Amino acid sequence: MTATMEPRTDGYDEEEAGTERAGWRLRRGATITGTGASFSVWAPKAKSVVVVIATGDAAGEHELERRVGERGVFTADVAGVKAGDRYGFSLDGGDPLPDPVSRSQPEGVHALSEVVDPNAFEWHDESWPGVALPDFVIYEMHVGAFTPEGTFAAAAARLPELVALGVTAVELMPVAEFPGRRNWGYDGVHLFAPHHAYGGPVELKRFVDAAHQLGIGVVLDVVYNHVGPEGNYLDHFGPYFTEVYRTLWGRAMNYDGPGSDAVRRWVHDNARYWITEFHIDALRLDAVQGIFDFGALQLLEELSDEVHELGRRLGRKIQLVAESDLNDPRLIRPPAQGGYGMDAQWADDVHHTIHTALTGERHGYYQDFQGTATIADVYREPFFYARRYAPHRDRTHGRSSAGVPRQRFIVCAQNHDQIGNRPGGERLASLVPPDRTRLAAALVLLSPYLPLLFMGEEYGETAPFLYFVEHGDPELVEAVREGRRKELDVLGTLGTPADPQAEDTFVRSRLEWSRRGTDEGARMLRLYSDLLALRRERGARGGRRRLVHRLP
Amino acid sequence: MTATMEPRTDGYDEEEAGTERAGWRLRRGATITGTGASFSVWAPKAKSVVVVIATGDAAGEHELERRVGERGVFTADVAGVKAGDRYGFSLDGGDPLPDPVSRSQPEGVHALSEVVDPNAFEWHDESWPGVALPDFVIYEMHVGAFTPEGTFAAAAARLPELVALGVTAVELMPVAEFPGRRNWGYDGVHLFAPHHAYGGPVELKRFVDAAHQLGIGVVLDVVYNHVGPEGNYLDHFGPYFTEVYRTLWGRAMNYDGPGSDAVRRWVHDNARYWITEFHIDALRLDAVQGIFDFGALQLLEELSDEVHELGRRLGRKIQLVAESDLNDPRLIRPPAQGGYGMDAQWADDVHHTIHTALTGERHGYYQDFQGTATIADVYREPFFYARRYAPHRDRTHGRSSAGVPRQRFIVCAQNHDQIGNRPGGERLASLVPPDRTRLAAALVLLSPYLPLLFMGEEYGETAPFLYFVEHGDPELVEAVREGRRKELDVLGTLGTPADPQAEDTFVRSRLEWSRRGTDEGARMLRLYSDLLALRRERGARGGRRRLVHRLP
Repeated sequence: MTATMEPRTDGYDEEEAGTERAGWRLRRGATITGTGASFSVWAPKAKSVVVVIATGDAAGEHELERRVGERGVFTADVAGVKAGDRYGFSLDGGDPLPDPVSRSQPEGVHALSEVVDPNAFEWHDESWPGVALPDFVIYEMHVGAFTPEGTFAAAAARLPELVALGVTAVELMPVAEFPGRRNWGYDGVHLFAPHHAYGGPVELKRFVDAAHQLGIGVVLDVVYNHVGPEGNYLDHFGPYFTEVYRTLWGRAMNYDGPGSDAVRRWVHDNARYWITEFHIDALRLDAVQGIFDFGALQLLEELSDEVHELGRRLGRKIQLVAESDLNDPRLIRPPAQGGYGMDAQWADDVHHTIHTALTGERHGYYQDFQGTATIADVYREPFFYARRYAPHRDRTHGRSSAGVPRQRFIVCAQNHDQIGNRPGGERLASLVPPDRTRLAAALVLLSPYLPLLFMGEEYGETAPFLYFVEHGDPELVEAVREGRRKELDVLGTLGTPADPQAEDTFVRSRLEWSRRGTDEGARMLRLYSDLLALRRERGARGGRRRLVHRLP
Repeated sequence: MTATMEPRTDGYDEEEAGTERAGWRLRRGATITGTGASFSVWAPKAKSVVVVIATGDAAGEHELERRVGERGVFTADVAGVKAGDRYGFSLDGGDPLPDPVSRSQPEGVHALSEVVDPNAFEWHDESWPGVALPDFVIYEMHVGAFTPEGTFAAAAARLPELVALGVTAVELMPVAEFPGRRNWGYDGVHLFAPHHAYGGPVELKRFVDAAHQLGIGVVLDVVYNHVGPEGNYLDHFGPYFTEVYRTLWGRAMNYDGPGSDAVRRWVHDNARYWITEFHIDALRLDAVQGIFDFGALQLLEELSDEVHELGRRLGRKIQLVAESDLNDPRLIRPPAQGGYGMDAQWADDVHHTIHTALTGERHGYYQDFQGTATIADVYREPFFYARRYAPHRDRTHGRSSAGVPRQRFIVCAQNHDQIGNRPGGERLASLVPPDRTRLAAALVLLSPYLPLLFMGEEYGETAPFLYFVEHGDPELVEAVREGRRKELDVLGTLGTPADPQAEDTFVRSRLEWSRRGTDEGARMLRLYSDLLALRRERGARGGRRRLVHRLP
């Protein structure tokens, strides 16, 4: 048997692989066809798989067939299925479960999946040129807390204000279906389903379409290091998890053990799905230090290759960004240098240095920066910890990023974690006087790195951004409360955190748009807008000093 | 504070670091001085440390002082201590424990350590030139089973026969102090102490000295992926272990968590100790897939750098070899290509291909080779699994080693694992007729890779090589028996394994030297010797065909 005669390693057959060379489409889950839908699911442990269609003309049970030469993939074509129909997979006679690649979960994480027709949406962004890496000015947004309505549609209506501000891309905190109606997004369990409370897949497409028509890109935060604790039915389908590694947030994903090919493919599919069906411009991979893969081809390198190859085929600029706690330049070095070939990574040392310099705080991991790192240090090398002993970590950390262009690092003075992982969820504007927040803004927006703002900082928002969830299981709610107390204790932050489950915790975390119109808010907005204008012009004008903004 | 003012991250102060630039010596444990000995131990959790000296003029208790600027290191100078004295460290008033860097454990893993003077040995290998990487022909030896006596001294007496055979290096299975008198060596817990039943440190030095005087090198098998289950007191001293990862053999070592700097240093020290105090030529790192380190500077890359730097300073050829299950060329690629810079790695796919071709076996992991890989395949690319689906692993495995010279891969037709991980411990000579073992010999010894023989195969030994231990704890004995049954079950091997604890299991595994003198034994020996002669000459003679050995 020669290599080309090997079965595909990811449960995709050769015919499918051939088709893919021309384009890409999602081949698992429910795919609308001319006459109905085809269903496809990876369920290697199952003896029999039935798709249970709960609504519409095709309602009933339809047995799937195990495909020859594909390890554990079952498929069936079912006539009469239409977009909007609800379905689930029954394994070996069990209750119908939501689809691991469900595009939509209109009734939440535990309920049936919805058939979606990805071709039904009419796009208006043909002339969108994309965002080149050096041009990124990122605005991080929580869709639920950005507007009073908490929807994609309401957020889209506010996009012109962000364009006027000068941001070039909006970064959405994770939108994958999570339990309840409010959550930061890192408890998502249906990785392909934009949350129903935000408006589901169609509204996310409208949001991206609107952004592109306004001339800004969309970055999506995706979580591949764990899934949330509620509504996770993946174990029924296959070995998605491993016991070999442990993450801080739950069971580690199985990226290098038996059955991992299909789990890796599920991640690659997810990334390609956002890019193709939603026109997403860049993916921000959450906490890649929790993506454990000791195999010879690390998941991130493979993903980077897949995503960039897709971008080339589509003629689009696609960026892959890592949030990483590792201070490891391997993530963004090219494969020829043994790197994973990602485009950019977060450089939190820059945040911590600015934050400790401005606030004087030295609790938790801030102790590694206060009195040690200087702003000059982190402007020379984004990894202050590059083979240097970090007291809070109690180990030598990181590695020099020498030779890596600085436009491959994303920096901020505030983000959801740095604000929200405090018991009081205080933004910088609540911790220091306005002259210091202005200084922070200048340090970030004029830095040689790619700047990221957290929603509201541009007008000096003082509403907190707290940690909030809405779980269904009382035991889990208590565990989250306890976990939160412990985590903040580990961080060394004093004080009692707000109750994550309380609706009020979420309500208090919403932006107060009225503040934007105050004198103070307008002054801060002008500063941000002027600094961003300067940033845009800087390339042309060089280093000449001139007045760009007169402080009040 | 500048980088150079940072405390050293490994518990070594600047003065020590300065001294090290000129040479290297072990600075932990007991160091003989002009007037006695200095003691040094890393015990970050201890409030007080006392060295208890049990014998000699200095007998008594001596308090150690915590060194300023070194995280958790305690030291004391004690007058009157002499080589041969027994000592232990008492932490916070507890019982005296053996030293984590004990050079000698004359009464076993649980007992006190012995002070050793590393300068007392007189070497005779000044003119030893070392072995260049392409010249390695490795003879793997278990010291206990190689001779009836089972000692370094008895093994040394047999070295001339190996020289006559044509091997250029002997590889010792791990010699670090393990529980009991018999063990493969992978249950070692005192990484710096050559086993007392083999003759301890002085006899190991004599063995290496003898080898070098005879013109062959010594490779030492070292285990950094776990320590054995009995006699492990490391937890009392510091965070040597982590719960973040799991290995197949026990708790994973802490190479990237809090406190890991000193654990990494302990490993680096161990490697440098064998090279400097024992004149070891190469280290074979056991199962590096169990060395979990997600930090930005992987332990193996750091170790490789340290070891090669030491070799340059000493003007010696030092090789670092990985036993790896990963099929990952990163291990041996240079750091400029993102590699770890090791010198060579095992290529087990070559063994499996030869073994399945000759035996027809397809149980366990052999199913991934039988009928799939051909010998021609693995002579082109040592990693048959290079992004190819492996059924037994149930995942895509490995990565192409394109561009890596073939002399960086070590291959064999037999080794301790492939023989010993069978219930009957059968060598190839017990499984196939002599013509096939002869073919295996030719395939390995004339391969473009570096060949490794397992002791006895050169004369067609048919005694088994079984798995044996001598644990002190009955529960552990039962657990090992059960674990062995399960492991062999996972391997898919049929049959009941011999009792690992039984002395007879060990006795049966000894070489039967009388077989060497039989007609059959002598014929096989001549073949090996002729093939190795051809291998030596091949470089000069090129590809011309000629008669090198007439089969009987």
